[in-house]
Amino acid sequence: MSYNLLKGKRGIIFGALNSESIAWKVAERAVEEGAQIVLTNTAVSLRLGEIKTLAEKCNAPIIAADATNIEEIEALVDKTLDYFGGKIDFVLHSIGMSPNVRKNIEYQDLNYAFLDKTLDISALSFHKVMQVLYKKQALAEWGSIVALSYIAAQRTFVGYNDMADAKALLESIARSFGAVFGRDFKVRVNTVSQSPTATTAGKGIKGMEGMLEFANALSPLGNADADNCADYCITLFSDLTRKVTMQNLYHDGGFSTMGLSEEVFKAFIAGKEK
Amino acid sequence: MSYNLLKGKRGIIFGALNSESIAWKVAERAVEEGAQIVLTNTAVSLRLGEIKTLAEKCNAPIIAADATNIEEIEALVDKTLDYFGGKIDFVLHSIGMSPNVRKNIEYQDLNYAFLDKTLDISALSFHKVMQVLYKKQALAEWGSIVALSYIAAQRTFVGYNDMADAKALLESIARSFGAVFGRDFKVRVNTVSQSPTATTAGKGIKGMEGMLEFANALSPLGNADADNCADYCITLFSDLTRKVTMQNLYHDGGFSTMGLSEEVFKAFIAGKEK
Amino acid sequence: MSYNLLKGKRGIIFGALNSESIAWKVAERAVEEGAQIVLTNTAVSLRLGEIKTLAEKCNAPIIAADATNIEEIEALVDKTLDYFGGKIDFVLHSIGMSPNVRKNIEYQDLNYAFLDKTLDISALSFHKVMQVLYKKQALAEWGSIVALSYIAAQRTFVGYNDMADAKALLESIARSFGAVFGRDFKVRVNTVSQSPTATTAGKGIKGMEGMLEFANALSPLGNADADNCADYCITLFSDLTRKVTMQNLYHDGGFSTMGLSEEVFKAFIAGKEK
Amino acid sequence: MSYNLLKGKRGIIFGALNSESIAWKVAERAVEEGAQIVLTNTAVSLRLGEIKTLAEKCNAPIIAADATNIEEIEALVDKTLDYFGGKIDFVLHSIGMSPNVRKNIEYQDLNYAFLDKTLDISALSFHKVMQVLYKKQALAEWGSIVALSYIAAQRTFVGYNDMADAKALLESIARSFGAVFGRDFKVRVNTVSQSPTATTAGKGIKGMEGMLEFANALSPLGNADADNCADYCITLFSDLTRKVTMQNLYHDGGFSTMGLSEEVFKAFIAGKEK
Repeated sequence: MSYNLLKGKRGIIFGALNSESIAWKVAERAVEEGAQIVLTNTAVSLRLGEIKTLAEKCNAPIIAADATNIEEIEALVDKTLDYFGGKIDFVLHSIGMSPNVRKNIEYQDLNYAFLDKTLDISALSFHKVMQVLYKKQALAEWGSIVALSYIAAQRTFVGYNDMADAKALLESIARSFGAVFGRDFKVRVNTVSQSPTATTAGKGIKGMEGMLEFANALSPLGNADADNCADYCITLFSDLTRKVTMQNLYHDGGFSTMGLSEEVFKAFIAGKEK
Repeated sequence: MSYNLLKGKRGIIFGALNSESIAWKVAERAVEEGAQIVLTNTAVSLRLGEIKTLAEKCNAPIIAADATNIEEIEALVDKTLDYFGGKIDFVLHSIGMSPNVRKNIEYQDLNYAFLDKTLDISALSFHKVMQVLYKKQALAEWGSIVALSYIAAQRTFVGYNDMADAKALLESIARSFGAVFGRDFKVRVNTVSQSPTATTAGKGIKGMEGMLEFANALSPLGNADADNCADYCITLFSDLTRKVTMQNLYHDGGFSTMGLSEEVFKAFIAGKEK
Repeated sequence: MSYNLLKGKRGIIFGALNSESIAWKVAERAVEEGAQIVLTNTAVSLRLGEIKTLAEKCNAPIIAADATNIEEIEALVDKTLDYFGGKIDFVLHSIGMSPNVRKNIEYQDLNYAFLDKTLDISALSFHKVMQVLYKKQALAEWGSIVALSYIAAQRTFVGYNDMADAKALLESIARSFGAVFGRDFKVRVNTVSQSPTATTAGKGIKGMEGMLEFANALSPLGNADADNCADYCITLFSDLTRKVTMQNLYHDGGFSTMGLSEEVFKAFIAGKEK
Repeated sequence: MSYNLLKGKRGIIFGALNSESIAWKVAERAVEEGAQIVLTNTAVSLRLGEIKTLAEKCNAPIIAADATNIEEIEALVDKTLDYFGGKIDFVLHSIGMSPNVRKNIEYQDLNYAFLDKTLDISALSFHKVMQVLYKKQALAEWGSIVALSYIAAQRTFVGYNDMADAKALLESIARSFGAVFGRDFKVRVNTVSQSPTATTAGKGIKGMEGMLEFANALSPLGNADADNCADYCITLFSDLTRKVTMQNLYHDGGFSTMGLSEEVFKAFIAGKEK
């Protein structure tokens, strides 16, 4: 269903890989809601993924860019402004990767070159994208920038490893740059702290399936999935949320404010007795 | 402008007094977005306010009810279900009043009979409304309940007095009942922590005008006003935010995550020197 | 072991019932650390409990007072000031009770007369005690007031019921009154958010034993017990924490910032499969 | 005054530069309380500062080490274990520096090589120190690790710049490593979120004097100074706080939970009118 919530709006979507990606769903929903979009990802991801299918469906250009590389972001923003013939209204940052997680290196044994990569890809890329957008004055007034985060930024989840620290850094960057972007361009910046989601990236985390079950059992409304997340992002890009900024918004079926549910309690007690 | 975001939805709006009320704006916007609504307030407020104008504009019935009185809430819910011929999709609770604030009684000198009233009107009424709705199974699946709050629930603002404690209680009730309503009926419950707003109620707080200026100067996007708040509530009633629950959502132009802005800093330094 | 951390200090301890009570342990430790204390509880609790044993051990007078009754608190404070021959340095509020919990009334079915009692006993009593202390200027400069709380004030735990709302209110009162007490008397006010503890009160909560196990399995350091809590309170009464105020301090072995531990995860997965 | 709170304990203090440093005060107080300590800082800081005076006063060895360099940390820990002839009980991390702040580069114009340095020095160094301590099993059971932080990790303060993001990362590392250290060695890890303090590092921040005044005017107890902070750290190293872990502890006279004080309000209003 479409409400035309983003009619006439133009956005960049970072991070769509395949049809399981949250960014993919956001792209689809944004177009359904009347937006024009540009799709971007690294050259490698563009080759590995199925983004052409999405681009055709969304009638959107694909522009390769590494979000950790200033020059590539600059080229991306220039091309995007050119393509739109005007300023950008919304941006989705859905980028995260940890070589430490991929290689099952535990937190007390982090490889620091990998940690630098985790932070650069998953958090500093957000600053870089915003810095380029800021300098090029590329965002329209009342524009909206959203990055995807996870509650590991606040609480420790076994297995989430250095991605927890990357998400804490990401959320801090959203606040810090939100203060500047709000003051100077009336642009809002928020993070969405999403339920664990069975994307290709999510599946890379050890024990992900069990974590999905645990989160689902603790959350009164169950986990939010990628489709739910896309819907929520649409509201954050719309004109109806203009004064929401510098927030980390939990989109998680209630997980973040639950301490203990009956379902988790029962399974825990049953499992302890074994 | 209308997006038909609430097409086919039905809601109850508590607390519209006059055209400055946030509840008034929410009622107007909900109807613009395609909803049917029922308006309610205490008998006294109905006499004092201008709600008939709103009711005509919204083509909505007015049903008097004291939200601290179970029997009156029960009658209200029965009549509403009857009027709609079906379940309720959304509820706005915009109710708050402190006799201690009204009478300029300071926090270290609270009148406890007044404090009981503050808590009953401003917080327990929210539990009572939800308890009646729960028992009567009056909410449709994926329904949405919102109450209005203020950041004094987290930080102390001189002059806000026992309303701070009432808002903390209100937000806790939202979480506690949200866990139950989510689990049993897939209904979400949230509070919106709104910028200070120049409503009739807001103006009752000592130094309100200065507080509005201070909040505006600290917030990168400036204060959210009643119209902004109505827009935001519409998104929370819509189907696009189904997995957001048990949250306190700051709608405040960034106030809640600001420590110090240049504007506040300059005024503070200039004022200190005087 | 004693460090003489409270040498020359004088305090009131509310809420010691028997040797399992946290207040009991705090009383013992305070005296070990060189403090003089006054013990107080309701007349009924004094009869039911074993407080005389404690009073003898601590060489402390017992003064009956209902902390929800202003006149009784006034008499208590007058007698205490008289007994000490000087101002009070520290206060422990360890009071909480919910008739709804006791009678297994669920959250969606609360008895509102009981809820009023829950809030009055568990939260408003804290305001009343502080208001009397404030008006009588009974606290010495750099005095310290502590109330015991629980993380249900922030997150919902099945079974904790309306005590969650009472604790949220209690913590808000600590902040609000802390602002006043700090400004006017340089007195600090904090709450300690303690691990679930196997006290007589704690045991009244349904499924308490399982909750203790769950909390213990989630917390990297395991649950904090009553002895740990007494030690921690001593630091908060000492001169070494003079600038800590208006805080809710988690004393819980890390529970509050854990999302998922291996131990909970394994038990949950094992239990799900059953 | 001494309570012998740290009698028999042994610790490493990172970051003492001169007598204004918080680390300097912590070193002095730790020794007063009966601890043996090792002092460490970078070779450059050791030359610039006056640490020899402190070392003599504390009867402590100085071991040069760059906390961003694993090999140097390893040598430091080896020498320290050797010097003590046993395990380490406490560690203070008081290290922070931003080249972007020093060169007055604004947040929307960050130099990314400088940002990497900010994060490496101010946050990743904490992980590196803990990783070496972990691998060498250098901490005694119930040991305590503390790092100094600032509320800019949660809220944006004009001028604090990329140090805000570094502190958010630091606090996340404390939580993440706290979970591991607690589980495996019963060691606690916390951050102290300290009032702005007039140290040599603090003075490097633009407008620091005004920020100190602002913070002081907002805090009911006024700013916590370096001496207060040292006292507080002593409690966190002592055996009385064994179950406090993975926390960010505000030590700020109430600043963090204040929204608006009369003093700030009056100065703001007076300054606005000018």
